[in-house]
Amino acid sequence: MIKARVTVTLKNGVLDPQGKAIEGALGSLGFEGVNQVRQGKVFDLEVETLDRAKAEEEIKAMCEKLLANTVIENYSISLS
Amino acid sequence: MIKARVTVTLKNGVLDPQGKAIEGALGSLGFEGVNQVRQGKVFDLEVETLDRAKAEEEIKAMCEKLLANTVIENYSISLS
Repeated sequence: MIKARVTVTLKNGVLDPQGKAIEGALGSLGFEGVNQVRQGKVFDLEVETLDRAKAEEEIKAMCEKLLANTVIENYSISLS
Repeated sequence: MIKARVTVTLKNGVLDPQGKAIEGALGSLGFEGVNQVRQGKVFDLEVETLDRAKAEEEIKAMCEKLLANTVIENYSISLS
């Protein structure tokens, strides 16, 4: 069994209104000098295999098919 | 200027219906042996300071006040 973490973030240049809202909210709370807030997603999962190469390949396929919208998002996979 | 990534994940024992839905969807797509899918959030941000200790302290305060619901979520901060 291999544990993995997939991090999905918006590509550069893609507008992130949610990130902007958080930036505004942080400013309202008195946190100054905070810029470039971007929100992304993280998925923790377990794959029932002991073959790390196979696991990574399978998770990459999951990202392409479901977890990330590769038109506007990047993803990175880290196995633990 | 310091770049940081904040990762917010649900605490153990907190139900994650979104993660369960993703697990089901992965199964429907033919990915077998995928378990314990949990979804979290990631925030990338820049803080206008060069003092890493101060930046970390400030981001910790942001997590406590806005970015994470510490009743049900854990957060981790990594500076780059």
